[in-house]
Amino acid sequence: MADKINRVVLAYSGGLDTSVILKWLQTEYGCEVVTFTADLGQGEELEPARRKAEAAGVKPEHIFIDDLREEFVSDFVFPMMRANALYEGLYLLGTSIARPLISKRLIEIAEEVGADAVAHGATGKGNDQVRFELSAYALNPDIKVIAPWREWDLNSRTALIDFAEKHQIQVPKDKRGESPFSTDANLLHTSSEGKVLEDPWEEVPDYVFSRTVNPEDAPDEPEVITIDFEKGDGVALNGKAMSPATLLAALNDLGRKHGIGRLDLVENRFVGMKSRGMYETPGGTIYHAAHRAIEQITLDRGAAHLKDELMPRYAELIYNGFWYAPEREMLQAAIDHSQEKVDGTVRMKLYKGGVHIIGRKSPNTLYSEKVVTFEDDEGAYDQRDAAGFIKLNALRLRLLGRRDR
Amino acid sequence: MADKINRVVLAYSGGLDTSVILKWLQTEYGCEVVTFTADLGQGEELEPARRKAEAAGVKPEHIFIDDLREEFVSDFVFPMMRANALYEGLYLLGTSIARPLISKRLIEIAEEVGADAVAHGATGKGNDQVRFELSAYALNPDIKVIAPWREWDLNSRTALIDFAEKHQIQVPKDKRGESPFSTDANLLHTSSEGKVLEDPWEEVPDYVFSRTVNPEDAPDEPEVITIDFEKGDGVALNGKAMSPATLLAALNDLGRKHGIGRLDLVENRFVGMKSRGMYETPGGTIYHAAHRAIEQITLDRGAAHLKDELMPRYAELIYNGFWYAPEREMLQAAIDHSQEKVDGTVRMKLYKGGVHIIGRKSPNTLYSEKVVTFEDDEGAYDQRDAAGFIKLNALRLRLLGRRDR
Amino acid sequence: MADKINRVVLAYSGGLDTSVILKWLQTEYGCEVVTFTADLGQGEELEPARRKAEAAGVKPEHIFIDDLREEFVSDFVFPMMRANALYEGLYLLGTSIARPLISKRLIEIAEEVGADAVAHGATGKGNDQVRFELSAYALNPDIKVIAPWREWDLNSRTALIDFAEKHQIQVPKDKRGESPFSTDANLLHTSSEGKVLEDPWEEVPDYVFSRTVNPEDAPDEPEVITIDFEKGDGVALNGKAMSPATLLAALNDLGRKHGIGRLDLVENRFVGMKSRGMYETPGGTIYHAAHRAIEQITLDRGAAHLKDELMPRYAELIYNGFWYAPEREMLQAAIDHSQEKVDGTVRMKLYKGGVHIIGRKSPNTLYSEKVVTFEDDEGAYDQRDAAGFIKLNALRLRLLGRRDR
Amino acid sequence: MADKINRVVLAYSGGLDTSVILKWLQTEYGCEVVTFTADLGQGEELEPARRKAEAAGVKPEHIFIDDLREEFVSDFVFPMMRANALYEGLYLLGTSIARPLISKRLIEIAEEVGADAVAHGATGKGNDQVRFELSAYALNPDIKVIAPWREWDLNSRTALIDFAEKHQIQVPKDKRGESPFSTDANLLHTSSEGKVLEDPWEEVPDYVFSRTVNPEDAPDEPEVITIDFEKGDGVALNGKAMSPATLLAALNDLGRKHGIGRLDLVENRFVGMKSRGMYETPGGTIYHAAHRAIEQITLDRGAAHLKDELMPRYAELIYNGFWYAPEREMLQAAIDHSQEKVDGTVRMKLYKGGVHIIGRKSPNTLYSEKVVTFEDDEGAYDQRDAAGFIKLNALRLRLLGRRDR
Repeated sequence: MADKINRVVLAYSGGLDTSVILKWLQTEYGCEVVTFTADLGQGEELEPARRKAEAAGVKPEHIFIDDLREEFVSDFVFPMMRANALYEGLYLLGTSIARPLISKRLIEIAEEVGADAVAHGATGKGNDQVRFELSAYALNPDIKVIAPWREWDLNSRTALIDFAEKHQIQVPKDKRGESPFSTDANLLHTSSEGKVLEDPWEEVPDYVFSRTVNPEDAPDEPEVITIDFEKGDGVALNGKAMSPATLLAALNDLGRKHGIGRLDLVENRFVGMKSRGMYETPGGTIYHAAHRAIEQITLDRGAAHLKDELMPRYAELIYNGFWYAPEREMLQAAIDHSQEKVDGTVRMKLYKGGVHIIGRKSPNTLYSEKVVTFEDDEGAYDQRDAAGFIKLNALRLRLLGRRDR
Repeated sequence: MADKINRVVLAYSGGLDTSVILKWLQTEYGCEVVTFTADLGQGEELEPARRKAEAAGVKPEHIFIDDLREEFVSDFVFPMMRANALYEGLYLLGTSIARPLISKRLIEIAEEVGADAVAHGATGKGNDQVRFELSAYALNPDIKVIAPWREWDLNSRTALIDFAEKHQIQVPKDKRGESPFSTDANLLHTSSEGKVLEDPWEEVPDYVFSRTVNPEDAPDEPEVITIDFEKGDGVALNGKAMSPATLLAALNDLGRKHGIGRLDLVENRFVGMKSRGMYETPGGTIYHAAHRAIEQITLDRGAAHLKDELMPRYAELIYNGFWYAPEREMLQAAIDHSQEKVDGTVRMKLYKGGVHIIGRKSPNTLYSEKVVTFEDDEGAYDQRDAAGFIKLNALRLRLLGRRDR
Repeated sequence: MADKINRVVLAYSGGLDTSVILKWLQTEYGCEVVTFTADLGQGEELEPARRKAEAAGVKPEHIFIDDLREEFVSDFVFPMMRANALYEGLYLLGTSIARPLISKRLIEIAEEVGADAVAHGATGKGNDQVRFELSAYALNPDIKVIAPWREWDLNSRTALIDFAEKHQIQVPKDKRGESPFSTDANLLHTSSEGKVLEDPWEEVPDYVFSRTVNPEDAPDEPEVITIDFEKGDGVALNGKAMSPATLLAALNDLGRKHGIGRLDLVENRFVGMKSRGMYETPGGTIYHAAHRAIEQITLDRGAAHLKDELMPRYAELIYNGFWYAPEREMLQAAIDHSQEKVDGTVRMKLYKGGVHIIGRKSPNTLYSEKVVTFEDDEGAYDQRDAAGFIKLNALRLRLLGRRDR
Repeated sequence: MADKINRVVLAYSGGLDTSVILKWLQTEYGCEVVTFTADLGQGEELEPARRKAEAAGVKPEHIFIDDLREEFVSDFVFPMMRANALYEGLYLLGTSIARPLISKRLIEIAEEVGADAVAHGATGKGNDQVRFELSAYALNPDIKVIAPWREWDLNSRTALIDFAEKHQIQVPKDKRGESPFSTDANLLHTSSEGKVLEDPWEEVPDYVFSRTVNPEDAPDEPEVITIDFEKGDGVALNGKAMSPATLLAALNDLGRKHGIGRLDLVENRFVGMKSRGMYETPGGTIYHAAHRAIEQITLDRGAAHLKDELMPRYAELIYNGFWYAPEREMLQAAIDHSQEKVDGTVRMKLYKGGVHIIGRKSPNTLYSEKVVTFEDDEGAYDQRDAAGFIKLNALRLRLLGRRDR
């Protein structure tokens, strides 16, 4: 608390934790608090947040509630999906990709209202603090960042509730005891971690899942759908044009129904430890598979393999919070360059937790039946060329073999 | 046919194509043919191949029939699985990984019997010719390679059958017409391509699949299994120790039953065109998922991320036929170095085409509940360290932001 | 010579070899030949080429002589230099980068004059045939390419000269015997290889060098120069604005005088063997060093390190002839994205073969004396942050150490 | 100063700074100090350090003075040189590579004497603190690390000297004023930074250099030398076998004489800012060039290119202090695997700051005059193979061209 703060913009959900933070900022820092509540598709009412902020004394003109769903999907989720990004081979980065957008709005609002600081409710052991703050500093190098969980002494549930009661903050009944796990949600995914999930040998209890049915309870009949792509981005479901957020929401419904996108993962946090998380990414899992499938026929091999080699680094940058870093932007420039002709339609079957690609077509297909066929291809490919191709590829190995074997 | 050949070792399955090749080599090259038939777990009787070779006039001492299943899994499949290798993000390389082993035996036998050439039945448009020949040349730079499909004029089914009949080669009834697709099989997988699969928009017909039941016909009850790993390799199923090939075979049975490991893929061949293939890798799909899961708790982040970045290149090398190339061996050295402590047990649920990790434990786990917990960790982690960590990671972004924003 | 050719565009220098090719195309293919002679700064008169082409019966409107120097430097050399490209750590790619431009013009002319083929004088063992042809095929997939050195039987000097004399082609006296080495030259460099250079243990004889003085004969006084950059490209020498080609030519003069840019290299050709070459890249060597120096103060670390990691692949692509491949264009997009702020001035000392950076400044510098100083920095950097930074970077190593040591 | 320390091992040079630290540890921490002084070839007498430590009250059995020169070169410098490591394209990592060895001995001594902490004299803005501490934590996860520069308030020269005088620490006359720059030295290099070097536009003054003559003052005659390699490591100079440290020392003498290895660099520190340094790496610069040259004829292309692609990451890991990290060890395993046949002799010319390779030979050479020659090669290479090679490499580009152009 070295610095004097006059006005701070808080990423505010209206829940217990950020309500306590709001009050704590007012009392400890003695500063004016501006609240920002984003609709990222987390599926919660936002108006209660407004009422709570007002009740806590935030000026009406200092309460910001924004629907960011379309911006979230079109400027963050889709660009990331163009890269087929998977962190540690499996994780679709649902939490990571939302953080830079929240920071972007925090900084914009701070500039609008003349705030000198931003604050967030992420803890000191997680990745989110890093993501919030790297983005904030990148967008406004002189901003101050307050991370109450790293500063205060309310480090047990009891202390937090005591503080809340002392300051007339309403404590929901289910928050009185220890929560069995903690969650984050947005249009792309819901993540859960902590408590009952902390032993990575123990199966995740069924009650943890909120966005998908258990595959065992999913319909016994598979459902066939199509997704259309233009320039690497999804534009239609089953032939019906949709905006990015609408498309993702519709895929979420399908994924929920068919039990798609559950992931039980032990991952490596940027702050240095391993953690076990459970992710549900219903629509994103379908979309990811579809995007790879449309690339299969529209992307040249050189482009596709370069993308595959760059992807782990790209995913790591997003996971670690470096969305607004030049190297992420450079990789994005390379990836986006490859997507110009990624148009077409993917057909897939959804069934009991699985996404099965069953067809893809494109006006820009690079697949040629004529070239690949075993039979006559009218001169498109001379099999004897293969002999020379192999001979020259083998030359260095033969010279090596002569020396070494 | 520039060179005079005295004796050639042929990779011989006993099927129509290689039977024709055997005769063609005898008549066109006028050379002695040695046959080599490998049991790689393709699930076919090998003795008929012996009888047919004898009938074609191959000397008994020149008929080689080897059971290579254990060597295949322990020296090829498992090392590749240590890398979590996936070609183009999806393909488990079942065909690619068998070719170098076949070439290795071809060259060994050639040296044993004093042959000056080897021959194979791969076509001139595919990857397998490249894989066979690169391996052969690497292991014996002076060997001659005969690829009849690139040389002869038997380029239609009719011409082939005419040749067969003319030379008293038995033509199975189902080979008389056009085969609706072509396949390759070994202990790791079965691949199918061509004909009915050539339109990538059309769903693969059910009769193409031979190694797995349709997920829709799989049991309605999930099955929970465990796999144990030592130094990165699988050693036991459900607690029962097994040799590599036995383990993979047992996993194949499980995968078959639960409809696991089907893949419909349009891939990029090394020879330059796209092709559409269907793969069934039942046991390999389960094993791959399990290996990633055990790495999650036993591999350091730095090692894990380096592996992820190297993997696409490693997979490409295997796909392209460069198993016996120094760069593949270098990558293998790096990968193997990382596997020293990859021990432990993975628990997973098999259900209707899906492999779901539900638990993992290890005597060498790097996961620490104490460090990751939200509550008191007895000083293992000081949350205030995160502030400094973020500040220094942000420094360059702030300097950049001051210049650019 | 499978195909009937009507009209072919030949990359024609007017020298003995391409003069023989011109005649050979006319006689063997019986087709009309169109000549294209490019001024890429190789330092030769081009009008003699016109006269010789006319003498060989080429129609005046089919003789193309183009000054491509500015296009060469601005669209090929400079973009490549933005990447700091070095093949195998040392080679500035002077030959490789000229080939795609020549192919581009060949294809443009072919379309202009309605030719169905292009031809070049590169041999069947080198890289240039690959570079010419990959570019040609990429730009016009249906073009036919004639590579006489791979087709004809004029494979000895004597046979070539016999053919020339038989067809009244003038044979320069110094071409009668075996040339002691062969060369390629353009504004960026001169390369020499073959004959007297073929033993890599033997020093390159002094008479091989043509673009630089021997460092031992260079001036005893160093010369200090400056180069100005804008958006990653050189724009001025010693404060004087210059076009790309003019700048490179002026740097060549300086490099020649000070004996800069000689390289004795054994390199790996794309076609599979090692070759020994001698390169002189006087101006390019100075420019390369200057570009790295200006990046040092204007490029963020993340961008700089990503560039360094991508560079070997980028250089390999250019060396192998894949300029017009999507993966090269993707990498270029990433690289170009990084150069937006690469402005400023580099000061360097040229002396006896050496280029020594002695200063750099930029309006966009990211270097901050205030931040880096040992003494008081007015809060720009809190040394205690370093403790947290180290602690979290060490965490995974400590967990690992607890397990393993 | 949260923790109670009983005994600390200090990396002690005997200079003013570490003498002050020694006393400060005794007085502030009230703990017993053990000193460790390493001979890494920095060219200073070590016995004065012993006397000063004794005078400061360190027990004789707690004064450790070790000659680590051979270990330094054979276990750290040479393995790094096998990778051709250059940080940011230019820096030979002379400081970075010494730090892990010092930490290794600090930890060994700590275990020997039962110390619970180690301490170093690196400042809070530099990379060395990170390197010392990451290595220490990796080797002993429970060690405590004291970094006085991050803790105390002696942050000006005056405060430091006041403290020294107050505690009877001898202050050398030249340390009374502000030092014009700071240095680090070992057998591989000397680095200088700070003060007079802080403006990157200003030329480094000549008095800063201590390890090399100015190239302009170097001999007017070039000197030709040879270095012999075995398995990737230097073993002889001019045919005379030498131990690693002896060889590097002899190369340093040669480099000094000929003005070789000066580098003026603005680099990116791991802690986030740019700094300007001046490096002198006389012998290392010669050795680095020689190693690349011997690799040119003994390393396969695949191995060489993979090494080039991995190198920037490898160098970054060393620069950032991750010598004892699994990913550095994995890369080392890959690199070392490639060096098995890197034997032979390199001939080079040293002249006025330049190292010029003029020849290389090896019993394991992969260079073949017969294969590369323009003339008859007795069938080693069929030029017509090149046509097929190009055709198949071009196929994907042609398919792309048909779609896009």
